[in-house]
Amino acid sequence: MTYGIENLPYASVVDADGRRFAAVRYGDAVLDLAHVDAGLFASGTLDALLAAGPDAWSWVRSDAATVIESGSVPLVALADVTPVLGFTVADYVDFYASEHHATNAGRIFRPNDEPLPPNWKQIPIGYHGRSGTVVASGTPVVRPSGMRGPGDAGPSARMDFEAEVAFVVGVPGSRIPEGDAHQHVFGLFLLNDWSARDIQAFETVPLGPFLGKSFATSVSPWITPLAALNAHHVDGAGLDIDLEVAINGEVVSRPRFADMYWTYAQLLAHLTSNGAPVRTGDVYGSGTVSGPDRGQWGCLLELTWNGTEPLGLGDGSVRTWLEDGDEVVIRAAAGSISLGEVAGRITPE
Amino acid sequence: MTYGIENLPYASVVDADGRRFAAVRYGDAVLDLAHVDAGLFASGTLDALLAAGPDAWSWVRSDAATVIESGSVPLVALADVTPVLGFTVADYVDFYASEHHATNAGRIFRPNDEPLPPNWKQIPIGYHGRSGTVVASGTPVVRPSGMRGPGDAGPSARMDFEAEVAFVVGVPGSRIPEGDAHQHVFGLFLLNDWSARDIQAFETVPLGPFLGKSFATSVSPWITPLAALNAHHVDGAGLDIDLEVAINGEVVSRPRFADMYWTYAQLLAHLTSNGAPVRTGDVYGSGTVSGPDRGQWGCLLELTWNGTEPLGLGDGSVRTWLEDGDEVVIRAAAGSISLGEVAGRITPE
Repeated sequence: MTYGIENLPYASVVDADGRRFAAVRYGDAVLDLAHVDAGLFASGTLDALLAAGPDAWSWVRSDAATVIESGSVPLVALADVTPVLGFTVADYVDFYASEHHATNAGRIFRPNDEPLPPNWKQIPIGYHGRSGTVVASGTPVVRPSGMRGPGDAGPSARMDFEAEVAFVVGVPGSRIPEGDAHQHVFGLFLLNDWSARDIQAFETVPLGPFLGKSFATSVSPWITPLAALNAHHVDGAGLDIDLEVAINGEVVSRPRFADMYWTYAQLLAHLTSNGAPVRTGDVYGSGTVSGPDRGQWGCLLELTWNGTEPLGLGDGSVRTWLEDGDEVVIRAAAGSISLGEVAGRITPE
Repeated sequence: MTYGIENLPYASVVDADGRRFAAVRYGDAVLDLAHVDAGLFASGTLDALLAAGPDAWSWVRSDAATVIESGSVPLVALADVTPVLGFTVADYVDFYASEHHATNAGRIFRPNDEPLPPNWKQIPIGYHGRSGTVVASGTPVVRPSGMRGPGDAGPSARMDFEAEVAFVVGVPGSRIPEGDAHQHVFGLFLLNDWSARDIQAFETVPLGPFLGKSFATSVSPWITPLAALNAHHVDGAGLDIDLEVAINGEVVSRPRFADMYWTYAQLLAHLTSNGAPVRTGDVYGSGTVSGPDRGQWGCLLELTWNGTEPLGLGDGSVRTWLEDGDEVVIRAAAGSISLGEVAGRITPE
């Protein structure tokens, strides 16, 4: 997996002096985008680039490649900078777009009903999450406390991850047809929708997930432009991305994004179909990416069948849910193009 | 109902030349807050004031009163300015804090079960809404389209309002105890959580309301500081506020905020109890304010018992749901202190 001229993902990075600048990654180095356009990147963020739209996305990418290949500007070693969240998150929506994940969740929680709710294949199901707790990879994830059931308050005993792919909107719009999604969506990254299953289960009827999700949502800082994935589309707007989830270094799942039922373009079309506009910096997640086989399921809810079937790790230990100190890393690639990783470690309250 | 020295609500206003400035309202006039502190209000918004905290809230209020009473600065006629949304909305959460409303909703949707879900009296139930579609009073509300049921797409045929009181956070924090809420919450305003009941009903299981709510949330621009309501507290953080809802000028309901089960301080304590921080500009709504009697119910879902009992208006017409052209106005007062109004008219797609 590489970070070559063909992908050039974007982030903001902070150097040892605390200076923040917008950058593209090339191998184990980064290019300060002020060398491409000082004005567009004056804020040190990607906000202005996102808003600037597809023509700017195209020439910035092309000019950055030219600058790198010319060798005219020294690159900065990746090891000398820390990547941070590169843009201002506006609204954050999380979907539920994997049929395999939704089916497993239905079988677990409603074993006597049809596993998929009647709406599921007619519209993409989703809900709004908390923008203010979207954090960059590496941020410690503090175990939340809450009501775990009737009269039962305390730290969550059912901490889970959810491996997702997320998309960031650049160009505002509303009622965006599927075919126009690429004119609005700048790029994609990886997202871990941390979930406290006990808090979520107690609160969720009738208004959906709230505190069981809102404590933290981790994202990979490097954003891969959609344009870098032109060779990796399947069935229209489907994307051929392979994910990998590791707990404490042990790979526990390999979900495939090509197995999703709803595409990123369908999710955006639905989100804006009622007339609601999207803004620059809006983020939407795919929901847990799960495939048909157990080795492709994207969360512990599925992998341990709601805690009833412990999962063995390579060191001989087992997990039903995440323990304090556990680190979850989600990585992904499209062919030889690396989409980076999102990491987070559970810390006690 | 007055706008006197004792309330002095805040907004941003735009004058005939398009100049935007932060202001307090006094009777039928406004004071440009640049006369109180040019630096704090340089942006023309209330953002810096909100973040500045309780000491600043106190001296700005006091100095504004002094300037107004001294007559040293000419006020601007209210008729010459348009109030707009005065601050940047960060995250928006909507609660469900009226026992009467939740009980009615339970009786309507789950007639054979206990009306309140088991969690309802243990924790305040809430969910995240869409920040990007919070709009100021007077903005037309376009009837949304969506899936109204299996295979049934089209404009919503069940448009409703929800009369709410909302709170804006000034000072960031997390795990905020009930007793500290007044150190974080700047003030309150009125909110109409427009709802497309058919779209909401079809999408809501299992992740809660989404497109049935996200098309528009209207708010009153004038924010009353909590400090103005010190004489109107009941049972600790309960607030003695009388609301009034009118459709096309006909009052259809008079909900009382004192009838709410959860207080604004309990809602904030819950929202932050899992460790999630609040930011300057975070908004949370109470949920529909309903009282025990039919004349105190805060939405058409209750007033027409889910469309089965039409509501007569003064002009001889009846409504089950809102029609194109209908205007809903929500007004409120605490004793003689006016809390302003939020208005919106339904327009066809």
